[in-house]
Amino acid sequence: MIRVGIVGGTGYTGVELLRLLLPHPEVEVAVITSRGEAGQRVDGLFPSLRGHTDLKFSAVSGKDLQGLDVIFFATPHGVAMEMAPELLAAGVRLIDLSADFRLSDAALFAEWYHQEHSSPALLPQASYGLPELFRDEIRGSRLVANPGCYPTAVTLGFAPLLEAGLLEAGGLIADCKSGVSGAGRTARLGLILPESADSVTAYGVSGHRHRPEIEETLSRIAGADIQVQFTPHLMPMIRGIHATLYGRLHKPMSNEALQDLFAQRYAQEPFVDVLPFGEHPSTRTVRGANVCRIALHQPRPGQVVVLSAIDNLVKGAAGQAVQNLNVLFAWPENLGLAQIPLLP
Amino acid sequence: MIRVGIVGGTGYTGVELLRLLLPHPEVEVAVITSRGEAGQRVDGLFPSLRGHTDLKFSAVSGKDLQGLDVIFFATPHGVAMEMAPELLAAGVRLIDLSADFRLSDAALFAEWYHQEHSSPALLPQASYGLPELFRDEIRGSRLVANPGCYPTAVTLGFAPLLEAGLLEAGGLIADCKSGVSGAGRTARLGLILPESADSVTAYGVSGHRHRPEIEETLSRIAGADIQVQFTPHLMPMIRGIHATLYGRLHKPMSNEALQDLFAQRYAQEPFVDVLPFGEHPSTRTVRGANVCRIALHQPRPGQVVVLSAIDNLVKGAAGQAVQNLNVLFAWPENLGLAQIPLLP
Amino acid sequence: MIRVGIVGGTGYTGVELLRLLLPHPEVEVAVITSRGEAGQRVDGLFPSLRGHTDLKFSAVSGKDLQGLDVIFFATPHGVAMEMAPELLAAGVRLIDLSADFRLSDAALFAEWYHQEHSSPALLPQASYGLPELFRDEIRGSRLVANPGCYPTAVTLGFAPLLEAGLLEAGGLIADCKSGVSGAGRTARLGLILPESADSVTAYGVSGHRHRPEIEETLSRIAGADIQVQFTPHLMPMIRGIHATLYGRLHKPMSNEALQDLFAQRYAQEPFVDVLPFGEHPSTRTVRGANVCRIALHQPRPGQVVVLSAIDNLVKGAAGQAVQNLNVLFAWPENLGLAQIPLLP
Amino acid sequence: MIRVGIVGGTGYTGVELLRLLLPHPEVEVAVITSRGEAGQRVDGLFPSLRGHTDLKFSAVSGKDLQGLDVIFFATPHGVAMEMAPELLAAGVRLIDLSADFRLSDAALFAEWYHQEHSSPALLPQASYGLPELFRDEIRGSRLVANPGCYPTAVTLGFAPLLEAGLLEAGGLIADCKSGVSGAGRTARLGLILPESADSVTAYGVSGHRHRPEIEETLSRIAGADIQVQFTPHLMPMIRGIHATLYGRLHKPMSNEALQDLFAQRYAQEPFVDVLPFGEHPSTRTVRGANVCRIALHQPRPGQVVVLSAIDNLVKGAAGQAVQNLNVLFAWPENLGLAQIPLLP
Repeated sequence: MIRVGIVGGTGYTGVELLRLLLPHPEVEVAVITSRGEAGQRVDGLFPSLRGHTDLKFSAVSGKDLQGLDVIFFATPHGVAMEMAPELLAAGVRLIDLSADFRLSDAALFAEWYHQEHSSPALLPQASYGLPELFRDEIRGSRLVANPGCYPTAVTLGFAPLLEAGLLEAGGLIADCKSGVSGAGRTARLGLILPESADSVTAYGVSGHRHRPEIEETLSRIAGADIQVQFTPHLMPMIRGIHATLYGRLHKPMSNEALQDLFAQRYAQEPFVDVLPFGEHPSTRTVRGANVCRIALHQPRPGQVVVLSAIDNLVKGAAGQAVQNLNVLFAWPENLGLAQIPLLP
Repeated sequence: MIRVGIVGGTGYTGVELLRLLLPHPEVEVAVITSRGEAGQRVDGLFPSLRGHTDLKFSAVSGKDLQGLDVIFFATPHGVAMEMAPELLAAGVRLIDLSADFRLSDAALFAEWYHQEHSSPALLPQASYGLPELFRDEIRGSRLVANPGCYPTAVTLGFAPLLEAGLLEAGGLIADCKSGVSGAGRTARLGLILPESADSVTAYGVSGHRHRPEIEETLSRIAGADIQVQFTPHLMPMIRGIHATLYGRLHKPMSNEALQDLFAQRYAQEPFVDVLPFGEHPSTRTVRGANVCRIALHQPRPGQVVVLSAIDNLVKGAAGQAVQNLNVLFAWPENLGLAQIPLLP
Repeated sequence: MIRVGIVGGTGYTGVELLRLLLPHPEVEVAVITSRGEAGQRVDGLFPSLRGHTDLKFSAVSGKDLQGLDVIFFATPHGVAMEMAPELLAAGVRLIDLSADFRLSDAALFAEWYHQEHSSPALLPQASYGLPELFRDEIRGSRLVANPGCYPTAVTLGFAPLLEAGLLEAGGLIADCKSGVSGAGRTARLGLILPESADSVTAYGVSGHRHRPEIEETLSRIAGADIQVQFTPHLMPMIRGIHATLYGRLHKPMSNEALQDLFAQRYAQEPFVDVLPFGEHPSTRTVRGANVCRIALHQPRPGQVVVLSAIDNLVKGAAGQAVQNLNVLFAWPENLGLAQIPLLP
Repeated sequence: MIRVGIVGGTGYTGVELLRLLLPHPEVEVAVITSRGEAGQRVDGLFPSLRGHTDLKFSAVSGKDLQGLDVIFFATPHGVAMEMAPELLAAGVRLIDLSADFRLSDAALFAEWYHQEHSSPALLPQASYGLPELFRDEIRGSRLVANPGCYPTAVTLGFAPLLEAGLLEAGGLIADCKSGVSGAGRTARLGLILPESADSVTAYGVSGHRHRPEIEETLSRIAGADIQVQFTPHLMPMIRGIHATLYGRLHKPMSNEALQDLFAQRYAQEPFVDVLPFGEHPSTRTVRGANVCRIALHQPRPGQVVVLSAIDNLVKGAAGQAVQNLNVLFAWPENLGLAQIPLLP
């Protein structure tokens, strides 16, 4: 049994971490922080938790957190990088769900997040918390950068092709569709139901912060400079990301070979589900569960289309964070993560 | 470990039973039947279950089911009453999620379901599976009639007032709002998204099958003939029932006394959550969980409004069925039912 | 051709007024005001209007508005009552979509809106802009209080029964369901899609500002003190109000007589549509149109249920305001209001 | 005033044609046919039309239609091509909203629609009813093939680039998102709200009937063989198509030049709205109106992304059909098509 804390618990990743961690057999959630809600019961803010916890939000400082085994940062970017040095020095392990440690290049961080990185020296120590690709690094690290939601869906979809060196470098496209919860639990006009329901809109088409994150990971696994056209869209739904990925093969291969490539690559992965060739995963089949479902298409020889679906708050955020926790402690990777998706 | 079967597993109560029973520590789902899908993998029809089961639908007859400990009927009305006599004789316990054994009066059944009851002799043996009201009867029975979704929300909301004899007999109103999944997994034009989204409509206002069920139970606990005006509405959402219940007190009582009545009545109930006086439960706070959240209002002296929210597929169907299973076997009542609601 | 202005044009009633007034054959929209957006093109804020207007928001004062024929207030309460005296004195006619002049009693206004009424002397001059009930008063007035959305649906549904003196005074219940646009175009956390979609919740059950408005009107037409239990609910949809109204007849009457009562009462009304007895109007059948559809039920003798559906932004706000404009100028009442509902 | 008929009026294109044609100042809708609903009032099936028409569905044969000026086919494919020869011979003009005359090659039709074309001799006479590209042809024709919804959004978005010869031939991608009404008014399990709401899914990724239609038109305007990877997705909304289009420029051009190209190309088009460079049209801004809104992006030099949004039932079907009618009769092209989108 370890004792964990959640810093910044009033957002959707906060409540989702609680949903997964409260019943986790090896975890006690000892602290959850919020400045604005300090002193309030957590189940007052999130009535879904009534009967499952007596926790209150606290406004503890970094010092108070030093006795914990692990801290999850469910904060906006900029918080974890301030608190990390002291906590790491105190022996706490960190799983950061924000963007602070996802990019290895502090200059790139500054460019996309409009803020200097305050702990650039820690960047080399951070592992990128996508266990399917970097399990060994994560296991050995004390600072895990939990991937973005879009990068998770996109990277798992492209990875087998890029690892095998099968894709042309140019022309990768990731057309992504996300539910509104991806924008966070925040009172923005564009997110209210009359503005966001019954409508589709693209955003950030000319440039989005998840693009450099995607490109860094893909380049790393390809061993070459990979550029991706990344286009996010806001969907009138609560949860879910659907990534539609386009790439061209250097030379055509059979559908069977394509399917085998993915099936074998992910055969041992408990949280990646490769559907039969030609199927279409819908996000409703992953709702509430830590799973990425992938299906392959080759509409014309050499033109590959990969469909990749996750729940943005689970495999795209809190679930993946718990998966990383399990990796860190060498527990079975699906401990506390066996939820069956909620359908319908 | 007991072996259970699900008869009629292709609907929403079927897949929801699987979501709850597959991880249940005392249960093995041995059989799930469907004539139309016989031979097909269950996770082919419900991809949410991929990785969680290798079950296939089977077309077994009643005989093949006689070796099971418990059978859940997730069928339309009319099926369970045909199969029940033989199965009960063989020692199988039955939990019927359909309407066949909910009404104690075969003539009333015939009137509302336009079909003669084929096993009227069994009606006196059936317990009404609302454990909060009839736990002892259920425990001693071999045939449990799992309540309808609306009746669950309505009855739990009115019960403390009627048990205490506080309500005027006339004028009870249950204005209920349900998600579309309550209509079942069935290809009906009125249910397709362009017909049912972004709209509200009442239905069955002049008479709905759940009214006699509600009235029978309320009359029984009131010890008097209770009539209710029951008005169901179709909401543009997937899951959830919200019952808005109106009644008049014989004489005004304080809000505190009202609140105490409910708080004490349900203090020991793991699945009924009485909110602070004057709050408003939303169905999103019960999504995916076996809980009924209730809040009380008294806008004017003597005018009580009870708000009652459940997930129609869980506390309103499959979850309650599992709760009844736990009662039957004297297991802890929340065994396999500790899911935290999915929010957002 | 008259020249009109809209004060406070950045909300949903603002854009809806523009949708209806821009093509109105007798109207030129000369001014639309907003402090926050002054100088900006209206179609920048509302791209739906691109190609239909070159208007910009202006920050004009009351003086600049005095040359107009009519001003629509699409502001929060508290604005119209400040500006009204001067504008009326200058000969401008006012149609106020806010609550400032809906209640005839300044004390009641203060109680429910937590603000002293600044122009109580004007209250007797204000007509209540529900043409189906008060057409003659409106025609003779220079200050029209456009009704609230809920009161429109509720009052039209109860009116024939109360005018005819058929209902018992006690026990009137208005259980109402509204789309989220009724809460306005405002960045509130509870309105964002992940908080409001796929869920139903009641609000203001213990008391809501529309209750005194409803009760004043119903009492007036009944010639007696009428109390209503009014319960609003937030629905996961954009537009639409569905009022489910309950009342008891002094003595039972036939369904035919009930139907005749409504059919005759509204026979000459272009914007009230009485459906055949026993039907169920859905809000989708009124989307975008200035119509109230009503259907009647008598589930048990003497128990009447009236279903009343409107588009909260049209017959519940902007459309009714245009209807009142037409009344004021003795134009055909459906001038500019012949839109067919958008279905699906 | 001309007299028109609608063949197959019980679907969404049927009711949408009525919404647009009933108030059209030059049109009388004389006949609307349906075998299944013959004799029934149209407003019985579509209560949104109550008060706007007394039409009944009729089961007339081709002969009865010969006295009409124009017939709209709102039927599944296969009907118009059977009835067309006789009607054309009788002097009736035809606007076919189905796919029968969209492809110029009968063999291609047979391949994608699994049916021999029964009137291949008529194919050369059919004009492709996208007025922005083929206005002159339409004007001179008596048989107009109204384009598919996806092809309309995709073609208008790619056209200026292809006409100017700026795009590389390979690598065109059209990632499209459609509301559920695009699947028609039909009782299919996958379309019911619990199956289609709160979820995104791709379909027909390996091949969809609209691909050959898109490719034929694009090839024609490019004067070269154009291939497109077309990927449709089902969105949890009622109306709207959002096409996200990807192409590579032969050589980079400035954003200004790109914007100018589109702005000038569509400057005289009443129904194509080119937004400022870098904006993101949402489908809610076109709801109910006959307009295509387009915005341009060039995230990296040479990589163009075109966003194109329409209402699938208006500019993607019935509205475009009325636009074609106006072209045929040389009326102002926006006659009866000046509806302002319904927002929110």
